[in-house]
This record gives sequence, structure tokens and C-alpha cells, in this order.
Amino acid sequence: MADKPSIPKGTRDFTPLEMARRNFIFDTIRAIFKIHGFQPIETPAMENLSSLMGKYGEEGDKLLFKILNSGDFKGKLSSSELQETPSGRLGTLISEKGLRYDLTVPFARFVVQHRDKITFPFKRYQIQPVWRADRPQRGRYREFYQCDVDVIGSNSLLNEYELIQIIDEVFQALGLQVLIKLNNRKVLAGIVEVIGEPERMVDITVAIDKLEKIGMEKVKAELEQKGLSSAAIEKLEPILKMQGSSEDKLSFLENFLEGSETGTAGLEEIRKLFSYLELGTTGAPVELDLTLARGLNYYTGSIIEVKSAEMEIGSVCGGGRYDDLTGIFGLQGVSGVGVSFGADRIYDVMLQMERFPESSTLESKLLFVNFGEQEVAHILPILKRLREEGVASEIYPDQAKMKKQMNYANSRKIPFVALVGEQELKEGKITLKEMVSGKQEQLTPDQLLERLSPVK
Amino acid sequence: MADKPSIPKGTRDFTPLEMARRNFIFDTIRAIFKIHGFQPIETPAMENLSSLMGKYGEEGDKLLFKILNSGDFKGKLSSSELQETPSGRLGTLISEKGLRYDLTVPFARFVVQHRDKITFPFKRYQIQPVWRADRPQRGRYREFYQCDVDVIGSNSLLNEYELIQIIDEVFQALGLQVLIKLNNRKVLAGIVEVIGEPERMVDITVAIDKLEKIGMEKVKAELEQKGLSSAAIEKLEPILKMQGSSEDKLSFLENFLEGSETGTAGLEEIRKLFSYLELGTTGAPVELDLTLARGLNYYTGSIIEVKSAEMEIGSVCGGGRYDDLTGIFGLQGVSGVGVSFGADRIYDVMLQMERFPESSTLESKLLFVNFGEQEVAHILPILKRLREEGVASEIYPDQAKMKKQMNYANSRKIPFVALVGEQELKEGKITLKEMVSGKQEQLTPDQLLERLSPVK
Repeated sequence: MADKPSIPKGTRDFTPLEMARRNFIFDTIRAIFKIHGFQPIETPAMENLSSLMGKYGEEGDKLLFKILNSGDFKGKLSSSELQETPSGRLGTLISEKGLRYDLTVPFARFVVQHRDKITFPFKRYQIQPVWRADRPQRGRYREFYQCDVDVIGSNSLLNEYELIQIIDEVFQALGLQVLIKLNNRKVLAGIVEVIGEPERMVDITVAIDKLEKIGMEKVKAELEQKGLSSAAIEKLEPILKMQGSSEDKLSFLENFLEGSETGTAGLEEIRKLFSYLELGTTGAPVELDLTLARGLNYYTGSIIEVKSAEMEIGSVCGGGRYDDLTGIFGLQGVSGVGVSFGADRIYDVMLQMERFPESSTLESKLLFVNFGEQEVAHILPILKRLREEGVASEIYPDQAKMKKQMNYANSRKIPFVALVGEQELKEGKITLKEMVSGKQEQLTPDQLLERLSPVK
Repeated sequence: MADKPSIPKGTRDFTPLEMARRNFIFDTIRAIFKIHGFQPIETPAMENLSSLMGKYGEEGDKLLFKILNSGDFKGKLSSSELQETPSGRLGTLISEKGLRYDLTVPFARFVVQHRDKITFPFKRYQIQPVWRADRPQRGRYREFYQCDVDVIGSNSLLNEYELIQIIDEVFQALGLQVLIKLNNRKVLAGIVEVIGEPERMVDITVAIDKLEKIGMEKVKAELEQKGLSSAAIEKLEPILKMQGSSEDKLSFLENFLEGSETGTAGLEEIRKLFSYLELGTTGAPVELDLTLARGLNYYTGSIIEVKSAEMEIGSVCGGGRYDDLTGIFGLQGVSGVGVSFGADRIYDVMLQMERFPESSTLESKLLFVNFGEQEVAHILPILKRLREEGVASEIYPDQAKMKKQMNYANSRKIPFVALVGEQELKEGKITLKEMVSGKQEQLTPDQLLERLSPVK
């Protein structure tokens, strides 16, 4: 036989068991998006390369999967162009389309393209795969799903509140304990403004983050090495030392940021959001975390990140507010805020913590064993009635050996098997066997239906 | 402002309304697949080009979307190779991957690759998009969904029976009237064997199909022109003239095919399938149709096709039995049978016949109008309770003009609006307005919950 076929590295097949588990996650997320009034959209896997290029930085451009033009793709290129153009640029001459890299840019493109038909604020969710030509490694794939939920066209912090409610409900429904962390880019901007180093936002978040691990002296040394003035470092020290509850930190920051208009505005945003969260309390703790530096090059206000409280793994959900998402496609002044759930990482946590419910892997409830044509004739009408009543059930298609048929039921984890043999045929009965207990009972078709029908 | 952004031709965005309708179709199909004991799988969008090339004929190879290799894709090619290799072959030198063209070949690849972990007979369904570089035209897209359901590893005609039950249940649930047509490649093979023209299977199905339109003489002339002997045409005449019910036709064919082992076997298969269908009767008529020539180059037994009984449109579902699906990947002797639902065409029929239920487009049930911070503080806990009770509801995030907020509710088709103003705040009440009737009532939060909670 030939070599076993394979799939491209970094991609995956999903078996029925994996599908059941993945769908448990997707269905949970989708139901909660809906109950909050969000609406689904979908965009094509392929976007025009011009919509994608330049949106994810130079490194991102390299990670785009490009689709070779159909037909005579090199037709218009001279032989010298073919030879001399480097692969990177040549790729854009022979490809007009690329696979989507995330759901945010296609969403921005969607909003601009369909803006005349959209009711704003537009509350949309989108659950689709994305593709990146990243080096595949454990937990990182070239094809993976994103579950994005965004509100566009509203500045209100009630949107951030909604997203945090959604996050809280999703992880509660999945049975996972998480920490929800908040930050605000304006607060970070205020801090660097106050210490007189307005370009050092990232350096400072890194420093705060490292404090616990390497201690104050080493953090200071690092900041000095990065070129911060000693005056700035001295001014920053109280921020680095800042401790206590979110409320303690907010009080401290209020004084610290007094001179910064931006910083004070950011602080007010955080306060308001916390005040909403006191009205609609969450199960998961929500805390201020100044080290959150997610998406600092595009988020303009709130920054949100969610971590597992049970195991060490990167963030399972995150997002923030971007004041000019659609600007890249020429529509200015539309503010948006959104978060993205990392389905693959959530899957890994669920699996490792054994949180998938048993029922999410169950399928058919009943298998009729196939003893032959006469028995089949008796079974088919009963099978039809069972399905009409909502009982997922099947008949083994071939008249195979009993052992083979029982093995099928076992490996499919079908909880009941029905036997109709000569005796049962004569009496118009069915022997129902519960696979786990081995318990058998003789039932009429009506009794069987009653026994297996889902509770109404 | 810049030009509006766009998407590649032949691809589509799906708005919330379109998503609701499409999901109605997908959810209906998926629920019925499940109740028959089929299990979902998914495969990657990208397959190795070697898995796809040569599987869809020469024309199909041209319609594959190829993905340009990442990085220095032309690195190993000499300048003469670059210049002289025609685009078609050069494409395969700079691309290792392609987008899947259908779900059948990836399914065959999946079965062979995972055969050690699969329980046979394997009843799988798969609902995913496929991509073809076809010329886009009305109703034909470059990205479209297929909904495939197959059984692999069983020769039993009970599988064909199951598929026909599924077809019948799907179209009943969608509210569409259809005709289910059956044929069998072996019967066609028997006919051409009997008339002594074993290579003319397709010519003959075309001839039967045209009879009604152009009459016997013209059909005969065409067959003659195609090179059939006059003896063969004479022998074929009774088949062309054959009329009446499926049973009449079967009786006639029984005599006609007496000398052909293959033809007789095919006839027995059809008879057995009809006998099963008498036990589990379908709502839609199932009839023998010798003109069905779908997939004659790969189907080896049953051929199934479903047409709308209400409007002129191509087939809405079809499939058949293939005795050697996995042979292309080196695993011989595994028989399969399956059908594929054409979601896009079903969508077009549903839309034109106005069969989408109103409720499939409904979303949020209630919008709280936003009058200001004090009212918001009162609303948030009630909103949380509503959602906990399963009532999809939202609050307008901004304190915008009343008219704008009502317009939002209208265009989102939200049936109820809740008003909490100064008066209501004082009395702890909510004014609930039904949008269609304009009827208003004053309710306590508990009464509101009771009024809007879904029936349990």
C-alpha cells in the first residue's frame, strides 16, 4: 500500500470526539453572544491581498498565506521581472488574494463596505478559522478558530461592561475559573507623561511585570540600561511599589496622574467601568493590572485580558478599545471595542482540567442489532418513530456477527442496544439492553419509545 | 474618502439576516444527521496539493486554488525553469498546498489516514466551505458550503435507505416539496450490455432524457449520428418507450435485463431499496429515473438525486454509492455511499418560495432605552436577570436621542422596548412597549421577567 496520506503541517483534522468537545465550546460562546444581543456575520476565507497587506506589520505580511492567481499567472511578467524580483515582492505580483489572518481586519472591511446597510451601534460576533504561516509548535497552529465579539459605533463604557459580562458568563458556563484583568492605555500614557518619558509605555509595563520576579534593584538597572533618566526612574518608583486592591491602586493613581489630562481621563473610564461592575457583579474577580500591554500599538482605551486561575497558560481571551478601526479602510471616527476568545487554548485547558461534560461526547442513544431481513422489516418502522420523537438511534447496516455489532456499540459509546430476534418477532417485543449495567428488559414498541424519549 | 473596499469576485459576506437564514438550513440538516447517528468531522481548508491533484479530472486541476509556498518560494528554481515552465506546471513547483475543492476527497484522505482509530461502518457528516476557481455567475460561487453525509465500510442497502430518510426529513423540516429520484449504474450497464453497446451509457441516458422534448425519431437520429448500430437502437426502443410507475418499469426491466448479470443485480438493489421504503415511507415521492447520470464516472451502484417539486432549479441534493472511494489513497475494497446537500441552492429556493420562518430572523427580544446614568444603574441588575432567564436583551449603550434609540430597535426588529424614566425610577417600575401594536404596560421587574421568559 502507498504511504499514508497526510495534511499540511500546522493543520488538523477533527475527529467526532474532538468535534463534540469543540462544539461544546463554540455553542456555549455563541449562545451567550446571542443572549447579549450580538449578531453573527461571516466573511470569505479569501480577502483581496490589498485589504490584508500592511495591516499586521512587516512580520505579519510574511505570515499571510497568498493564493496564486488562476490561469496564466506569470503571463504579464517579463523574464527579468521573474528572475530579479525577490520572492516576497514577486508573491504580490502573482497573487491577488490571501487567506484571512484574523477576524478584525475583515470585520473593519465589512463595516466600511456595508456601512449603508448597518444599524449602528453594530454588535457583531464572528466565529471562523484564520490562517497564519507561523512556525507550527505545540499549541500554535497554521489554521485555528477565533471567536470575536465587538461593538462598533459607540463610545459608551457600557460596551466594555457587556463584554466583561460575556466573558464571565462564558467561563462560568464552561466550568473554568478565570481572572479578568483590566488596564487602560490612557492611564499608561498618563504615567509616562508624568515621569517625562512619553515614548516608554512598553518598557514601563515590562518593568512592573518583572518586579516580583527580579526585585526593585534589577528592574531599575534594566530601565536605566534602556535609557530612562534617573529622574524618571525615581518618579516611577511609587508606581512600581504600588500594591493592594484595585481600589487602593485607583486612589493612588488619582493623585499620581493629577497633572495628566489623558491619565485622568483613563482613570475615570476605569472607575466608571468598575461602578457598572458593582451593579452587575461577575463571578470571576476583575482587577486592575497595569502590566497589561496587549495590543498597545492599536488599542486606544480599555485593555482586557483573561487568564486561567487554575493552570499556567497564556491568555484565554483578550481585547480592547480601538478608536479608529475602520480608518484603515477610509471610514474615520468610528470607535469600537471587542474581545476574542481563543478556542484552541480554551480547549487545551478544558481537556487538561477534565471539564468537558460527559454528555457533550454522547451521540446515538440506541443501536438496533441486525439479525436479518425479517427482523429489519420489523425494526424500520419503530426506528422511524424513535427518531420522530427525537431519539438519536440507528440500526447496524450489515447482518454481521453479534460480537462485531456489540463492539460497534461499545466503541461508539452507544448506551442502549435493542435486540429483535425470532422470539421477540413472535411476541412483538424488543429486548432493550443497557450497555453499562448489562440489564435487559423486554418492551413493546410503545414502552421502548416511552423509555427512551427525552423528557419533555 | 478612499474607494470602498471589496472582496474577491465569487465570494460573499453574510450579514446577520443571511446568517440567520443560512443557520436555519444548517441547523436543520445537522439535527437530522445526528438523529440518524451520524457523527461530525472537520478537515483543514488546506490540503497537500498532492492529495488534490488528479482527483477531479484535468479541468478540476485547473480550478484548484493553490497556496503560494511561504518564504523564498522560487529559491530552488533556476531562471530557465522560471521562464520556460508554463504557469500551470510552475504553479505546482511553487505551491505545495491547495484549498479543498470538495468534501469527498478530504474525507477519503481522512479515512485512510485515521483508519486505525475509526469504527466501521463510519457514519460521518461534514459541513464546511469548499473553493473552486470557477467563473463566477448567478448562483455559482468560488466559496460555497457543502453538507455531506456518508457511510463508509458497509455494502448494505440499508445505508441508501437511511440517506433517503434523511433527505425526506430534511426537506420536510425545511418546508420544501421535492422529488427523490433513484437510478443504479448497474442497471444502465445492463441496458448497454443487452443492446450490445457497452461503452454508450451516457449517450443512452441523454437519449431517454430528450425523448419527451424532441420525440422518438429525432432521438434515434441522434443516436445513429453518435455511431450506435441500428440493431442496438432497435433493441433500445422499448426502453425509450417505457412508461408508468416505478413498479411497471421494474417489471419491464426484469425481462429486458434477464441476460445481464450486472443489470439483474442492479435491479435487485433497486427492488430491495424500494421494499425498505415501503416500511419506512417517505413524505416525498421516490421514483426510478433511468436518465439520472450523475457521477457516472465514479458511482458504482445507487445514484440519488433530489429536485424541487415547486420550482425549476438544478438538483438540491444528490449522491450515490462508490465502491472504491479510498482506493485513490491506497486503501482498497472499502465501499461507501453518501449524498451532499447544496446549501446555496436550497437557500435560493427557500428565499424565492418564502419558506424561511419569521422566527429564524429574530434576535433580541427586548431593548432598554438609555436615559442616563441613574436609569442605567437601575436597569443593569434587571438586564442580568433577564439574560439568566434566557431572554436575549440589551441596553442601548449611549444616551442618545429617543428617536435614534427607537430607530435602532426598529431596524433590529426587536419586538419590545423597555422605558425606565424618572417616574418609573421612583415607582420601581418599567414601562414595556410592544413595538408592533404600540401597546404599553407598567410592570415590576418580576412581572417583566414573567412576561418575557420563554415558556418552560
